[in-house]
Amino acid sequence: MQFFSDNATPVCPEVMAAVAAADQADHGYDGDAWSGRLDQAFSALFDAPVKALWITTGTAANSIALACLCPPYGGVICHEEAHIVVDECGAPGFYTHGAALMTLPGEGAKLSPDAVRDRLGLIRPDVHQIPACAISITQATEYGLAYTPDEVAALGAVARAHSLGLHMDGARFANAVAFLGCGPADITWRAGVDILSFGCVKNGGMLGEALVFFGPQAQARAAQAERWRKRGGHLLSKGRYLAAQLLAMVEGDLWLSNARAANAAAQALANAASDRLIHPVETNELFIRLTPVEAARLRAAGFDFYDWGEGAARLVTNWSQNDASVRPMADAMRALG
Amino acid sequence: MQFFSDNATPVCPEVMAAVAAADQADHGYDGDAWSGRLDQAFSALFDAPVKALWITTGTAANSIALACLCPPYGGVICHEEAHIVVDECGAPGFYTHGAALMTLPGEGAKLSPDAVRDRLGLIRPDVHQIPACAISITQATEYGLAYTPDEVAALGAVARAHSLGLHMDGARFANAVAFLGCGPADITWRAGVDILSFGCVKNGGMLGEALVFFGPQAQARAAQAERWRKRGGHLLSKGRYLAAQLLAMVEGDLWLSNARAANAAAQALANAASDRLIHPVETNELFIRLTPVEAARLRAAGFDFYDWGEGAARLVTNWSQNDASVRPMADAMRALG
Amino acid sequence: MQFFSDNATPVCPEVMAAVAAADQADHGYDGDAWSGRLDQAFSALFDAPVKALWITTGTAANSIALACLCPPYGGVICHEEAHIVVDECGAPGFYTHGAALMTLPGEGAKLSPDAVRDRLGLIRPDVHQIPACAISITQATEYGLAYTPDEVAALGAVARAHSLGLHMDGARFANAVAFLGCGPADITWRAGVDILSFGCVKNGGMLGEALVFFGPQAQARAAQAERWRKRGGHLLSKGRYLAAQLLAMVEGDLWLSNARAANAAAQALANAASDRLIHPVETNELFIRLTPVEAARLRAAGFDFYDWGEGAARLVTNWSQNDASVRPMADAMRALG
Amino acid sequence: MQFFSDNATPVCPEVMAAVAAADQADHGYDGDAWSGRLDQAFSALFDAPVKALWITTGTAANSIALACLCPPYGGVICHEEAHIVVDECGAPGFYTHGAALMTLPGEGAKLSPDAVRDRLGLIRPDVHQIPACAISITQATEYGLAYTPDEVAALGAVARAHSLGLHMDGARFANAVAFLGCGPADITWRAGVDILSFGCVKNGGMLGEALVFFGPQAQARAAQAERWRKRGGHLLSKGRYLAAQLLAMVEGDLWLSNARAANAAAQALANAASDRLIHPVETNELFIRLTPVEAARLRAAGFDFYDWGEGAARLVTNWSQNDASVRPMADAMRALG
Repeated sequence: MQFFSDNATPVCPEVMAAVAAADQADHGYDGDAWSGRLDQAFSALFDAPVKALWITTGTAANSIALACLCPPYGGVICHEEAHIVVDECGAPGFYTHGAALMTLPGEGAKLSPDAVRDRLGLIRPDVHQIPACAISITQATEYGLAYTPDEVAALGAVARAHSLGLHMDGARFANAVAFLGCGPADITWRAGVDILSFGCVKNGGMLGEALVFFGPQAQARAAQAERWRKRGGHLLSKGRYLAAQLLAMVEGDLWLSNARAANAAAQALANAASDRLIHPVETNELFIRLTPVEAARLRAAGFDFYDWGEGAARLVTNWSQNDASVRPMADAMRALG
Repeated sequence: MQFFSDNATPVCPEVMAAVAAADQADHGYDGDAWSGRLDQAFSALFDAPVKALWITTGTAANSIALACLCPPYGGVICHEEAHIVVDECGAPGFYTHGAALMTLPGEGAKLSPDAVRDRLGLIRPDVHQIPACAISITQATEYGLAYTPDEVAALGAVARAHSLGLHMDGARFANAVAFLGCGPADITWRAGVDILSFGCVKNGGMLGEALVFFGPQAQARAAQAERWRKRGGHLLSKGRYLAAQLLAMVEGDLWLSNARAANAAAQALANAASDRLIHPVETNELFIRLTPVEAARLRAAGFDFYDWGEGAARLVTNWSQNDASVRPMADAMRALG
Repeated sequence: MQFFSDNATPVCPEVMAAVAAADQADHGYDGDAWSGRLDQAFSALFDAPVKALWITTGTAANSIALACLCPPYGGVICHEEAHIVVDECGAPGFYTHGAALMTLPGEGAKLSPDAVRDRLGLIRPDVHQIPACAISITQATEYGLAYTPDEVAALGAVARAHSLGLHMDGARFANAVAFLGCGPADITWRAGVDILSFGCVKNGGMLGEALVFFGPQAQARAAQAERWRKRGGHLLSKGRYLAAQLLAMVEGDLWLSNARAANAAAQALANAASDRLIHPVETNELFIRLTPVEAARLRAAGFDFYDWGEGAARLVTNWSQNDASVRPMADAMRALG
Repeated sequence: MQFFSDNATPVCPEVMAAVAAADQADHGYDGDAWSGRLDQAFSALFDAPVKALWITTGTAANSIALACLCPPYGGVICHEEAHIVVDECGAPGFYTHGAALMTLPGEGAKLSPDAVRDRLGLIRPDVHQIPACAISITQATEYGLAYTPDEVAALGAVARAHSLGLHMDGARFANAVAFLGCGPADITWRAGVDILSFGCVKNGGMLGEALVFFGPQAQARAAQAERWRKRGGHLLSKGRYLAAQLLAMVEGDLWLSNARAANAAAQALANAASDRLIHPVETNELFIRLTPVEAARLRAAGFDFYDWGEGAARLVTNWSQNDASVRPMADAMRALG
């Protein structure tokens, strides 16, 4: 049983069925019937008129979003452990043509409004210094924590006050919503988010995410994003196979039920390792203290996961699991003592 | 019956089966078993040790290839109607960070060695002018013509003589091989090609192409391309679903049989419209003279295709057709008189 | 006596005196008193409120201007022999982050409104094709011809009709005005020009040009250009030495009297070689038929100039010459027969 | 008497005389006699065969140097308060096409070998993370401290061990040499530096710096830098006016005597404010504790300088001063008590 990544899992059956159902002749690129339904499906999901584009990867989605919010000479305020900083090989710098990532520390990989305000206060408004133009946050964070609606709104208020765009990397957006029990709108446009990278592939998809644009500039930004999508080589010839996956996720509540299963599996593990937790477990990731000997014992018993530096490990649960199915791992962790 | 694009067709059954067979847990990105077999599969196909990477689209494949061959201050000699010039929204300029496309005319969208040499002769070797660093050709060309092994070799000789890289956009590479009856090596590394964009999606795939690197610099260039692939946001989380498609194509001869079917269908149409042809029909595209009235009659009868300027049309056949299946269209064209 | 370039001449005495007069302590960058007078001086010159920035070179001025008018995914329509195309090593592609130069032929290196309209008509408004976003023309052209006010206005009308920006590379703007006998406004903002690269260095300066922004977007574009100027490394620490040169040129009529002298010298040579002229001589450049033997005879007599391909030569006159001072060269050309 | 910047001073007489002496006709760009002497002059200065290019500004010099050492997907390790990070509006990101600045803290704006090694140890060697490709240090640092030859060599050893390039921003290189009493070679190529931005403008020049390339890759990197210089719009039409300034500095010992004067002036001030110093005074910058009331008293007495946050000030001395000439300011500071 593997816990090393939600990328390592198969595709969930409903998505695979949607791919098969899309296996028909239709117009190329995003001229097909499935792509044509995205705006409507995401508008229903977010309870507001939005623009939605399919994008092949989360890295591309994040980078294109930032390119819509920040000019080449600007900066994006983000957490120093954000995926865009440490795991995208500089893709945001590529798509923004060199914009700077202005990194801040913060518990659990969360940005705080105070830290952002302090950072903004240090920037002189002359041409020698890089002006901050956007804030990017990850929901759930790189440590699996969810920003509450109030926390997002507080950052949204800072963004508005300083005329900054607000981007949300939602690779695990569904897991955050499942934990918070709020509506998708409550942690996005209602809280000031301008563009959301809506995750699909970690949540049971085969490939692809959605870029969702909110607010009065949604149309203009989406038009710009369509240029970057093509120019970045992301406009698939047969986009219907990707659009169909997104629709399978959001036209029903598959996106949420998959996330709930993954979260429940994580809670089951958290209960079994409550004295080992480095961060609270809110979504589908656990960061636990684990000695090399303990790690070896678990692996010998057939469980796999990533080491997370010295004496720690990261476990990620996924849509194909639930509290019952991860019992063998929970028992094995309890047995470590 | 549609003839407007080979992008509009469904996925061929063997590829769909390969996708289903890859629906298992495995390592993310390109750490899976399918991705791990690509070098071997393409080395067998090309009868030489090559490096092969999956890439999500042809535009990305072409652009990343050019970024491996040309610095930002350099230029790429290519045909003025090449896909990289007219249909990629400047993606090569994005990936190369601003390299110039140095366009030349040429019958049937083919570059001639003489035209290339003449162009090279006009460039002063000072810092004011952009040095040519690569040549890019399309096989088959945008008008469906195949460069013969000798024609490619002649361009390869020019490239070597001037220390230029040679890239081949092979979105319809299989169709060219099927027409020429040669081996894949004969029109690539044996003729001086450094990097090939090997088409898959137009030939029955769901998404994706392969970048194939030849010669002594293959390893170094592929390593660089892996950086661009990640940095461009093209490193899919679940690469196995794409790698499996490529393997399904090239571990057997599916790539060739699909192309042969498409070419045969095109020949059947060409025979029916021999006095309308604007270019010889060698692969799976026909460019024909067709009045608006004639076009309307064909469309009324249920056939679809693209207009190609005034009084002309483009018909593209595909893997799912053959000489028999396109008989209704052939008959309809004959009936136009 | 040299005629190979107006870059090869010394600095005119008035400019050198202005540099000496600026040799005082003052604030750095463009915070000094000289830089602070530029807007006013150029507004007076152009008879309208304009924004003016000093820029170190013409290549930088042109590139930054284009970056203000064209996004990375856009294109700039220009002549195929324009300086931005053939003599700037891709600098426009660097500053625009990859925008395409869409080149057109045209007699005397002039763009015609019809040719521009035809080119625009070929661009499909989909994301696959690069949209034209600006037109760039050179005044005087690379062959020394001046666009009349009507000619500029006709291009300005095309630009407005298609929402394109209009840039003028005025490396020899003064020579064009001197020839046309019009006001500077007549061939710039009154004719639809948005941004002008106002030449100084070829006209007697030591270094530097001005970027002049016209119209309602002048402030916003100049603010953007200030970012590019800094980000491109062009914000000199001691900008007063450059600002002082521009003021010396335009606060009086030095810019015009220098240009008139150069033009008069060119006319004197043109009269002496009237049957050799390849292009009419309007400003300070002559393109003449000249056999290698004739060229050698002139060089042996102490005259220097550039060969211009086979059997032709380019002669450039400058501010330090006039009709009288070039008589030896005129006589020598007449003596060739 | 102003102490706010060494950019605010006039040009020293020897440099102004050199500019006047270069006021002759010669070939354009860097084809003139002065530019042609740079390699020789700097090779003599550095006691080794080097390549030297004039560059208009320090920002351009630094950025072009980094572009020669770091690919777009790479990173440059540097101090978090380095000029390239905080005062160049992202120019390094522009010239490197998006490379990341990997910032580290460090006392006095110095990088320590241990901090660099620790940072390198955190980077996974996979394509998801940005590889470090270069180190950049400032000599003297942003707080006026000089790296000793041993300190540079220790960083050079780390660079070599990890195959990183080593760049030195030497905007105040002369001041560092004057303080250290070593040879220029001792803190550059002998200590592992690959490329030096050799400052001129703060040390009495009108504009411009030199890029100096050391070691076996000097030729290749300089050739690349020449492309960036042109492509960045920095190839002045009349380069002789800049080359002449550099030669005036380094063909004699003007560069060193100017720096010594500035350093001596700083020492005189440091002696007068020894209990106020925030950093040791080694070159020509003082950072002192100063209350708003005290600052106001000094300004009322005719002395100007920058505030440096709350309760502190920065004073910069320059070539035109010395220990005697700054006595009024020294006395005024002593009088503050």
